[in-house]
Amino acid sequence: MPRQAPAPEVSATEERSIALFCSLMNEDSSIAKVADLLRAEAQRLGPGAKLRSSRELVRELGVSPVTVSRAIARLTAEGRVITRPGSGAFAAPGRPESAQADSSWQTVALGDRVVDDTGVAGLLAEPGDGVIPLTGGYLNAALRPVRELSAAAARAVRRPDAWALPPLSGLPELRRWFAAEVGASRNDVLVVSGGQAALSHAFRSLAAPGEPVLVETPTYPGALATAKMAGLRAVAVPVDKDGVRPELLAEAFAVTGARVFYCQPTLHNPTGATLTRERREQVLAVARAAGAFIIEDDFSRYLGSGAPPPALVSMDEHGTVVHVLSLSKISAPSLRVAALIARGPAARRLRASQVVESFFVARPLQETALEFVTAPGWRRHLATVRREIGERQRLLLAALARHLPAAEVHLVPHGGLHLWVRLPDETDEAALVERAHRAGVLVSPGRIYYPAEPPGPRIRLTHTAPADHAELTEGVIRLASTF
Amino acid sequence: MPRQAPAPEVSATEERSIALFCSLMNEDSSIAKVADLLRAEAQRLGPGAKLRSSRELVRELGVSPVTVSRAIARLTAEGRVITRPGSGAFAAPGRPESAQADSSWQTVALGDRVVDDTGVAGLLAEPGDGVIPLTGGYLNAALRPVRELSAAAARAVRRPDAWALPPLSGLPELRRWFAAEVGASRNDVLVVSGGQAALSHAFRSLAAPGEPVLVETPTYPGALATAKMAGLRAVAVPVDKDGVRPELLAEAFAVTGARVFYCQPTLHNPTGATLTRERREQVLAVARAAGAFIIEDDFSRYLGSGAPPPALVSMDEHGTVVHVLSLSKISAPSLRVAALIARGPAARRLRASQVVESFFVARPLQETALEFVTAPGWRRHLATVRREIGERQRLLLAALARHLPAAEVHLVPHGGLHLWVRLPDETDEAALVERAHRAGVLVSPGRIYYPAEPPGPRIRLTHTAPADHAELTEGVIRLASTF
Repeated sequence: MPRQAPAPEVSATEERSIALFCSLMNEDSSIAKVADLLRAEAQRLGPGAKLRSSRELVRELGVSPVTVSRAIARLTAEGRVITRPGSGAFAAPGRPESAQADSSWQTVALGDRVVDDTGVAGLLAEPGDGVIPLTGGYLNAALRPVRELSAAAARAVRRPDAWALPPLSGLPELRRWFAAEVGASRNDVLVVSGGQAALSHAFRSLAAPGEPVLVETPTYPGALATAKMAGLRAVAVPVDKDGVRPELLAEAFAVTGARVFYCQPTLHNPTGATLTRERREQVLAVARAAGAFIIEDDFSRYLGSGAPPPALVSMDEHGTVVHVLSLSKISAPSLRVAALIARGPAARRLRASQVVESFFVARPLQETALEFVTAPGWRRHLATVRREIGERQRLLLAALARHLPAAEVHLVPHGGLHLWVRLPDETDEAALVERAHRAGVLVSPGRIYYPAEPPGPRIRLTHTAPADHAELTEGVIRLASTF
Repeated sequence: MPRQAPAPEVSATEERSIALFCSLMNEDSSIAKVADLLRAEAQRLGPGAKLRSSRELVRELGVSPVTVSRAIARLTAEGRVITRPGSGAFAAPGRPESAQADSSWQTVALGDRVVDDTGVAGLLAEPGDGVIPLTGGYLNAALRPVRELSAAAARAVRRPDAWALPPLSGLPELRRWFAAEVGASRNDVLVVSGGQAALSHAFRSLAAPGEPVLVETPTYPGALATAKMAGLRAVAVPVDKDGVRPELLAEAFAVTGARVFYCQPTLHNPTGATLTRERREQVLAVARAAGAFIIEDDFSRYLGSGAPPPALVSMDEHGTVVHVLSLSKISAPSLRVAALIARGPAARRLRASQVVESFFVARPLQETALEFVTAPGWRRHLATVRREIGERQRLLLAALARHLPAAEVHLVPHGGLHLWVRLPDETDEAALVERAHRAGVLVSPGRIYYPAEPPGPRIRLTHTAPADHAELTEGVIRLASTF
């Protein structure tokens, strides 16, 4: 059908203005409609098929050529259509890649509840080639009991029921082992998929979204991230060289009405402080008086230079303490098995949280963990790691004293993987970390350990991350070169 | 101090009444106070130490002998004190067991956010000795590829990096395999700890607490439980024999403003319905128009009698579908590896959810899954299970027709583990399930599959749960005996 001439009372200029106006008003929806139609046509005809010509579309749909060409441009951008000059538009071969699909509608559907994983993902990042890691939360591969773990796994998967449903709270023998380690009762142990999962269950189960949770400051960024994902507000309680300060903890409970305190009483991350025996009793009494839970993150239990101090859970008579005991720190990142130890209604809620969330921990992993910790190699491995930690800590201290005298070590901890280092006040922490990375050494910036404003520039240095002693020293030299 | 004689204006009888009244009023708090005091004394003096005598306590505290003896009885019940007739009370040796500690303060701290795990825990419950299971979501142990899994695991843990940190989204090869299975792109795949964990991440990431989520009715109770734990309200959309009804889905989106629809389009649990090709397109269009996500739970992908219909995710151009593909149904409960396939910001949010929640899936499990699905035994196993499902389904249908003609099978599905059975309207479903259990057969009550009121008595019968064909028939006979 040939196009109608404009009605005589409208001039040609006016007609163009009206058309432009209408096209601006309707453009978006018209383009979208034509694009939808062509998308369907391309899909129906299949890859490579020729689509209707622009001329046909203009005629059949009563839209402008501009609309058609914009719709085709959109589909080309989506990777669904290709155009060949002089030949027209064709359905693109194959399915478009995800990056090209338009998923911007999701932004509306998802809202603003962004989960911030930068702290955690940063801790788990692998260093690039040639970069020396002085960060991370695990033993270097050279220090891991890989042979023992694989032997344990080989024994575990030979059992006929290795792939069956385990008891939902975990293998009884493994629960007994965990209980005996900290002086708890077997029935109080829930086997979970690693320490991070334990923290997630604990935060979600013990406090409601919007509620405050008390944390040491500085503290482990993974705990801050999971508390935040559970909708909790982290309120900072200062620590000194003997761990959290009980009088400030009591004040924080009183001011906030918090019902949960998360802490690492032994070889605290990042400072390395260990709560004294006397303070342990005070902290328990303070939490008890506040009617609050203590989440005791005992991630460093096997990383100390001597016998660990009594766990808070072993001193607790009232179900105040929810204890987290993880195996991956002392073994390898992929032994994702930990114990969550609790009593009373809290224990039931934690169990329900895991069952609904992810059912249970894969039985072969549980059997492997049990084989590993009950084999003779376990004690040998503990002794080896303990010795190596001592040597590396001395080496790191010496290297810092020699190459980086401006850095001030917070304290010399009785073990652990890290040193917490105070930098001169005028240091730009972020810039230093970035310069160090360019110089070939990864260090952990202090600010990620603070739930609120950091008091000044700090870095955390992990002596167990480099492959060997030479690499550890070289890492410090590279770091010093950036000052 | 000798006891005072009563004042002369009060008779001895009156005095006893007053004392009784006061003791009833104050008894509880007095007993608690004395018990607290003795508890502290027992702890201070240490195991085995003799406590103050009842006589001393009565005199020093000004309480009645009854109060003292009740306080001692309470501590005895708690396991903190032992009494020796004629010698008095002593601090008990050792630490009291958890069941005896008083954790009732937790009830206040925890509030009312009880997690209901009865539906899930029930599905995972092991039948007692001699009880035939016609319930559960897994293949019977006899049908599981245990040898192949253990061989795959043995190969996997021989690799030197078996215990190292995997890439956070999963092993690239495993992601590629999952992507190829459903026609998605490798980059869109996140490896997670089983299908249940996948649902937890999806519900938590795609909707905010308090928001509605559309579900089929009936539907999988594990999905209802995890949606509820994420704070979501499940809104039911009816299904018929071709799956969910698109016009009702559209209406439900319009009425509720929901942004998420959870469904099992292939061999739906519990009805066995498979969404037709035409409806798949309609459901996609409806969700697209609503600006909503579809969580496509493809748990039955490998349980059908023929090639599975195209996954919704393979028909989706806009990142509408979040696909869940699990390996445990076709293999064994402890192969806790699944894929969560998504695009756009939703994919990033799901990744962040897993990293913050539990870091990553243990590498040995991922390596095992990859070895398992790429070994020649995988195709053989699929064929074996497919054949066995066909045989067992026919057997169950025949047994029902013969022994339980009053039961009406909803439809004969093209595979899957279950039949959905309608019982005569006058049946008391709960009583029947209970009678069946006493008669030695476990069946799944229909009501747990409904987010709202069930339309009538139903049960779900799982033909892959019994050890063999004879046990399957015997199960139906036992069930029939209770009608």
